[in-house]
Amino acid sequence: MPRYALVLEYDGRPFVGWQRQDNGPSVQAALALATERFCGESPDLVAAGRTDAGVHASGQVVHLDLARSVDPGRMRDALNHHLRPAPIAVLEARRVTDDFHARFGATARAYRYRILTRRAPPTLERGLVWHHPHQLNAALMHDAGQLLVGRHDFTSFRATACQSRSPLKSIDLLHVRRQGEHVELHIRARSFLHHQVRNIVGSLALVGAGRRPLGWIAEVLAARDRTAAGPTAPPDGLCLVEVRYPGWSSTAQD
Amino acid sequence: MPRYALVLEYDGRPFVGWQRQDNGPSVQAALALATERFCGESPDLVAAGRTDAGVHASGQVVHLDLARSVDPGRMRDALNHHLRPAPIAVLEARRVTDDFHARFGATARAYRYRILTRRAPPTLERGLVWHHPHQLNAALMHDAGQLLVGRHDFTSFRATACQSRSPLKSIDLLHVRRQGEHVELHIRARSFLHHQVRNIVGSLALVGAGRRPLGWIAEVLAARDRTAAGPTAPPDGLCLVEVRYPGWSSTAQD
Repeated sequence: MPRYALVLEYDGRPFVGWQRQDNGPSVQAALALATERFCGESPDLVAAGRTDAGVHASGQVVHLDLARSVDPGRMRDALNHHLRPAPIAVLEARRVTDDFHARFGATARAYRYRILTRRAPPTLERGLVWHHPHQLNAALMHDAGQLLVGRHDFTSFRATACQSRSPLKSIDLLHVRRQGEHVELHIRARSFLHHQVRNIVGSLALVGAGRRPLGWIAEVLAARDRTAAGPTAPPDGLCLVEVRYPGWSSTAQD
Repeated sequence: MPRYALVLEYDGRPFVGWQRQDNGPSVQAALALATERFCGESPDLVAAGRTDAGVHASGQVVHLDLARSVDPGRMRDALNHHLRPAPIAVLEARRVTDDFHARFGATARAYRYRILTRRAPPTLERGLVWHHPHQLNAALMHDAGQLLVGRHDFTSFRATACQSRSPLKSIDLLHVRRQGEHVELHIRARSFLHHQVRNIVGSLALVGAGRRPLGWIAEVLAARDRTAAGPTAPPDGLCLVEVRYPGWSSTAQD
């Protein structure tokens, strides 16, 4: 059976998350319905990242097997047709080898987190940013973030419901920079724990707001205790922007 | 009576436009209601640009007179509180002189128009961009646009319903550039005719798509005939980004 990889962009606002659930519409269920309408088949849909409710994607990757071979360009256009009006788009469809696995084959995942720092609430970006009505020092957040780069036990930044076997993860890159009224965080790792990015953002924001010193981040990490860290930042600002595989990445479409 | 100027950002999607109308919610009516809740007064609200249905703003300017003097910062925060959940935000409130006029005192208005050029439809930017599924040559659009800079009779780019006394307008700046999957147009003039920006975008897009030669824009301008130009681009991509007055601009908040 030929295997295909899809690069997905979606607005997470109306969804309970990637994963199909009983309590509301999911990206997975919407894509399954579009696939069935396109080719009459109901293959398993395996995603690189199981994004939570309200979390967005511009470079999610999903793989699926079809009984018959289809032209990838036609598949992309047909799925986009059948996905309407759900805010989900297939940016690219590509034929991949039978051993490709969207989740276990990924060598890196990158997320962006956007914070709007101003008194007035967001309008054009509502649901797409975390509104922080006070100033944040992005340079300080960046410096504090460097204490998290490398391989560490991230128990302090892990959701209590996290099902990962190990709290050990390696952060390859963490950048924080100011862009006008926004503070933007970019973070990359092979994989993340549940809520890890949002918990890191929630703690770095305390440093950026001057409510904790820079070195506090190292103390939080060493504590290996979720209650030592800051609150979980809301899903609104989070976007899965890239998944990397040997030989290609979801941000570099053909 | 003290006069105040407000800098507004809004998402035009749910509105029939700036102007109060019988057929649906308007930005003006939402702001009037918030003003009344804030101070019990119902002043006239005069906007720099009467944006159409679905058109956005990040730098709209409105002026109003109140019977009593209020702190501008408190006014901004209180209006934002009372504007919820409408996607309208007061970015700044400032006390202005009694002769300040948001519409007639403006020395320049600047709009941005964003086009998404890719096969897949927009998701995160739905309603905020014009989806153009084929490529556009931004450099060619920029060059064609230069034929419109300066003082001209813009009858060909004017809505038939336009109520302006004269079709003569001066475009001070017109820039088109590619930014990844987007083509972005920036245009600035003292004032514009009704639909002028959207009609210019619709015609430049024909040049960018290779369906008309660059010099065709000069022919359209010379024809002084609306039917000579291209179609009106949709409101989605249009945003009023700046209004300038002697001494200040709506993009430079304190």
